[in-house]
Amino acid sequence: MVCVDQQCLKIGIVGATGYTGVELLRLLVGHQKVMLHVVTSDTEKGKHITDVFPNLSGFLDMQFSAHDSPLLHECDVIFFATPHATSMYKIPKLLDGQIKIIDLSADFRLQDPAQWKHWYGVEHAAPELLERAVYGLPEMNRQQIAKADLVANPGCYPTAILLGFLPLLEKNYVAIDSLIADAKSGCSGAGRKAVLNNTFSEISGSLSAYSISGHRHLPEICQVLSQSAKQAIDLTFTPHLIPMVRGIFATLYSQLNQVDIDITDMYQKRYNDEPFIDIVNTVEKISTSSVYGTNMCRILVKQTHDSNKLTVMSIIDNLVKGAAGQAIQNMNIMFGFCEEMGLKHPAIYP
Amino acid sequence: MVCVDQQCLKIGIVGATGYTGVELLRLLVGHQKVMLHVVTSDTEKGKHITDVFPNLSGFLDMQFSAHDSPLLHECDVIFFATPHATSMYKIPKLLDGQIKIIDLSADFRLQDPAQWKHWYGVEHAAPELLERAVYGLPEMNRQQIAKADLVANPGCYPTAILLGFLPLLEKNYVAIDSLIADAKSGCSGAGRKAVLNNTFSEISGSLSAYSISGHRHLPEICQVLSQSAKQAIDLTFTPHLIPMVRGIFATLYSQLNQVDIDITDMYQKRYNDEPFIDIVNTVEKISTSSVYGTNMCRILVKQTHDSNKLTVMSIIDNLVKGAAGQAIQNMNIMFGFCEEMGLKHPAIYP
Amino acid sequence: MVCVDQQCLKIGIVGATGYTGVELLRLLVGHQKVMLHVVTSDTEKGKHITDVFPNLSGFLDMQFSAHDSPLLHECDVIFFATPHATSMYKIPKLLDGQIKIIDLSADFRLQDPAQWKHWYGVEHAAPELLERAVYGLPEMNRQQIAKADLVANPGCYPTAILLGFLPLLEKNYVAIDSLIADAKSGCSGAGRKAVLNNTFSEISGSLSAYSISGHRHLPEICQVLSQSAKQAIDLTFTPHLIPMVRGIFATLYSQLNQVDIDITDMYQKRYNDEPFIDIVNTVEKISTSSVYGTNMCRILVKQTHDSNKLTVMSIIDNLVKGAAGQAIQNMNIMFGFCEEMGLKHPAIYP
Amino acid sequence: MVCVDQQCLKIGIVGATGYTGVELLRLLVGHQKVMLHVVTSDTEKGKHITDVFPNLSGFLDMQFSAHDSPLLHECDVIFFATPHATSMYKIPKLLDGQIKIIDLSADFRLQDPAQWKHWYGVEHAAPELLERAVYGLPEMNRQQIAKADLVANPGCYPTAILLGFLPLLEKNYVAIDSLIADAKSGCSGAGRKAVLNNTFSEISGSLSAYSISGHRHLPEICQVLSQSAKQAIDLTFTPHLIPMVRGIFATLYSQLNQVDIDITDMYQKRYNDEPFIDIVNTVEKISTSSVYGTNMCRILVKQTHDSNKLTVMSIIDNLVKGAAGQAIQNMNIMFGFCEEMGLKHPAIYP
Repeated sequence: MVCVDQQCLKIGIVGATGYTGVELLRLLVGHQKVMLHVVTSDTEKGKHITDVFPNLSGFLDMQFSAHDSPLLHECDVIFFATPHATSMYKIPKLLDGQIKIIDLSADFRLQDPAQWKHWYGVEHAAPELLERAVYGLPEMNRQQIAKADLVANPGCYPTAILLGFLPLLEKNYVAIDSLIADAKSGCSGAGRKAVLNNTFSEISGSLSAYSISGHRHLPEICQVLSQSAKQAIDLTFTPHLIPMVRGIFATLYSQLNQVDIDITDMYQKRYNDEPFIDIVNTVEKISTSSVYGTNMCRILVKQTHDSNKLTVMSIIDNLVKGAAGQAIQNMNIMFGFCEEMGLKHPAIYP
Repeated sequence: MVCVDQQCLKIGIVGATGYTGVELLRLLVGHQKVMLHVVTSDTEKGKHITDVFPNLSGFLDMQFSAHDSPLLHECDVIFFATPHATSMYKIPKLLDGQIKIIDLSADFRLQDPAQWKHWYGVEHAAPELLERAVYGLPEMNRQQIAKADLVANPGCYPTAILLGFLPLLEKNYVAIDSLIADAKSGCSGAGRKAVLNNTFSEISGSLSAYSISGHRHLPEICQVLSQSAKQAIDLTFTPHLIPMVRGIFATLYSQLNQVDIDITDMYQKRYNDEPFIDIVNTVEKISTSSVYGTNMCRILVKQTHDSNKLTVMSIIDNLVKGAAGQAIQNMNIMFGFCEEMGLKHPAIYP
Repeated sequence: MVCVDQQCLKIGIVGATGYTGVELLRLLVGHQKVMLHVVTSDTEKGKHITDVFPNLSGFLDMQFSAHDSPLLHECDVIFFATPHATSMYKIPKLLDGQIKIIDLSADFRLQDPAQWKHWYGVEHAAPELLERAVYGLPEMNRQQIAKADLVANPGCYPTAILLGFLPLLEKNYVAIDSLIADAKSGCSGAGRKAVLNNTFSEISGSLSAYSISGHRHLPEICQVLSQSAKQAIDLTFTPHLIPMVRGIFATLYSQLNQVDIDITDMYQKRYNDEPFIDIVNTVEKISTSSVYGTNMCRILVKQTHDSNKLTVMSIIDNLVKGAAGQAIQNMNIMFGFCEEMGLKHPAIYP
Repeated sequence: MVCVDQQCLKIGIVGATGYTGVELLRLLVGHQKVMLHVVTSDTEKGKHITDVFPNLSGFLDMQFSAHDSPLLHECDVIFFATPHATSMYKIPKLLDGQIKIIDLSADFRLQDPAQWKHWYGVEHAAPELLERAVYGLPEMNRQQIAKADLVANPGCYPTAILLGFLPLLEKNYVAIDSLIADAKSGCSGAGRKAVLNNTFSEISGSLSAYSISGHRHLPEICQVLSQSAKQAIDLTFTPHLIPMVRGIFATLYSQLNQVDIDITDMYQKRYNDEPFIDIVNTVEKISTSSVYGTNMCRILVKQTHDSNKLTVMSIIDNLVKGAAGQAIQNMNIMFGFCEEMGLKHPAIYP
């Protein structure tokens, strides 16, 4: 733990044995203004964290606590890295006016409880909090995040796709029925789970599509796109599974309403002050390895002279900008820290 | 060599040290009606083939000849597996009325020599043969292939994309300005070459796009789509490089002219008699590993009730149906063999 | 199915949903002298085989039967591809004097039932058959295999390691206390199972060792080495898990008793008539990809002038020569077929 | 660049376009006590570093200089990350009593110029400096490194193998003619070069051995082992190429002189104060991914009761502890910084 300062934030993490949980741990042990206070796991409680995650050996000396640890009530901020339909039962009891919560699961992302039930199969347990929860995409909602005590951290596909489409919709530059997101994800997006289809033998050397009849991230993306465009937006969305561990590459297609705008220039202006968005202009800079392990979103616009066809490529590391890194970025905003604190490392290459 | 029959075809392969060349060798050593007569290589002439390709050890006992070997004139059929702008200089001298030629390079794919010069940078050396060359996509041109003595074997991307789009265009079911091909290819598509960007360290764990300002396969695809639609067709085409060795996964987007057609049913009828096309109806069957090492093209149609948005997925092994396998399929057609001869093996799994 | 001949062998496969089972299917659909009569699976019974294994689509039209299907009693030969401690309960009832059985599991590999219990944790259910079972390594026991009705097919590590060490031990050329096998295996060796440690995210980009305090293949290897050397042999054995799907690479170390023997020459003579052993003399020919999908074992001897230190490298495809291919080789021997029947394909490259 | 302090060391890097060079850059931009003063490249001079290495975008704003940049003479410390037989021509002119040099190439590792010529094929250009150069393995030579102005940074294989063998040799616990190193390396060890054998298509899914008749790291290892044992030591060394990018896994075999010593305990004591050595006791903790991107060397000892056979496993990241990280560790020692400065990050997982 870097921080020995008594003024450090006390951090709780609920459900830290998934990939987003251990990624929170990896990033937080290097953050100057926080100290881990309690880290929970249902399956590993009592075990030393470094026995489960040898990569953290030498960086923290703690055991996993149970999900209902009373230490959670002493925290300044709690991250939920639980499977969906878990945090909605626990957060109402923790939101006491002191504790701030950042939920990396899907429980507070959709504003309509009926839609939540449709996609997740159970009644929402805390519909009264849905309006209070702020959608934690800093590039869109920074001011609301700064004041929030409950942040719904975006999904990985939504982060990449929204950051790629938002400037177009905000300006009303595209035909809203033309949006297509062809998205490719590494396998860590499927989580740290024993599933036959996730085994190395099944995935190595093979590319497949999945959830084509409806991925749970689709309503989340459409909700935010619609807010941004101020009208209902539909999206053709095809998720593909790539034989790599980390990374999302979203190739976004749309039709411009007018052909005389320099879209790259428009994106550069829109994201000019964003510490974690990098608009590039050559295809060589847009490989997922260039954001590996980082909180960066890198975007390339391909516009053809005199054509209304637009292609935008948007890449992130699904576990960082698509999960744990963005959650820490949100925490930094909520507590007035420098937004890049703990998140400023070059990608490992090669 | 399987064949000891005196009536076997005498085969020549020009340029057999690339991946399509060695794939021709792998498949032809198991073909009952052919015998390898001469195999050439500029860089490896004089070497034993199995010293360069240990996977063929025990299957043939030959050396590489020079490109100008007189043995070529004794062949019944010659495959060119040379880089582009090579075969166009050699084929005119070999096309003597006896020898049939299947060119796996790009030299005779484009019918317009001006367009050829634009994309390949040199004047075409044999424009008088462009009309004589038949585009070797059996599912489209089987009858012409049967009579041809010069076949231009399609590129890998064109094969996957054309087989996915053709039924729609033949029936005029889609808005012709709506076509998008988001294509993903394994690294063997880049050829057997020492290039930094192809090294394992650069590619492993990373996804990138390339040639987005214009891939050489684009004019080939548009030419054939336009023939099929009987009007000029443009295509938005994004090639991506995937960290796997073999396989192309083309995700094709278009807008239907009418919404009351069962597209899957239409595809099944269109391809009903095709030995190498398999229309499937679940996404689980459309991973590239399921066609690994085979001449199969597997297609899935995703149509949504009441929507005009159509997604078609088309997968092939780029070195088989996208190159060597399709070339042998063409040879089988040209010589009246069973079309599946030498091409009927299950994919290796896992 | 290739075979339509009424004289084809009727084949049964028990437990065909593991990787060795589906590999038997892949190879047997191309074998000219057999027809699949019944294929069983506890977990998938009733399903079409091609719905579970799309790579076999077009090659067979059968459903999985239950493990106790009466059709098994009509078979000429039955392959068991079940987990250990399964076949020993079923084989006694099937061994009726007509049916020949090839067991790919470990149940009949160890001759001492006490040792079996020690390593597999349960009492052996058919110790009376242990002596009757022939260890199915053709290069060692071809004549006994030809007469057997119960063959214990060797494990994958034992196959690679034994073929690499046997010539030395038969000749008594090495110090028997000096044997070390540093073995590296692809992930398919772990089977078709949902296990966290086998997922792509855990394995990709990482090399690990496992079972170092005692792998179940160790007693099997030592038993056969000891038979061959006619004295008790111990072995230092370290299994490593490699981020690849198929392949075993065994690097074998030993100390020669005398330094004036040409070991490569001795190996070439020993294996001269073996259709599936290839002694090579350059390191370029000894990559696992060169045996991918084939029944070949490729061996390289590294001997240094005037030194008694010997290194032998032995490579196989763990699912073919290390399992299904060797089982078919055994079947070919048991029924007097050409030993290479159904097993003669070049490795796919790249 | 983190450092704005005027007292920061001025750093020069010669030859920064290889993998060890860019890894130096990645690590040094996060080091608090240094500032990059000049970074040279013959092939990329004049280009912005971030145009060549997009992963560094946002972390430095510099161009590559020429190899003979006069800025080198203003540096406090210069790292050479050049190919072998390069630094030996340049270092004599730079070693002016002020500048300290850390050479990551092989030029000053071997103390005997005759041996250097034998293995590298050219006469050594600065034999007078060989004695002055300190072999930069901190766990062995920390005090000499602290006083050195020329450090020969160890090779990657030597680092992993020496750290695994040294405690045994220092104590004279093993039979010196029994040492075997079965070493496995990821592909980045081959460098950032366009070589056919390094392409993804050649390496993916395949394991091979190489340089078995003599790897250049062998004399380096034997030289240091011999110093440590105070007698001439030979080693059986087999390097293997693994289809992964980073990581070395060295499996070390030897025979103990006596069987009643607890070797794990002895290793723990030997390395007790070492910040970058971690002795573990379960095989689960010894996968290369656990040191990915870090300067850690993790070691597991496998000793069997009553046997003199010893197996030691030693893992590192070849580009960090095996190159750039160890070079920075040496710099920290040479300048009296905390030895972990700039090198304390958890491994990225998964």
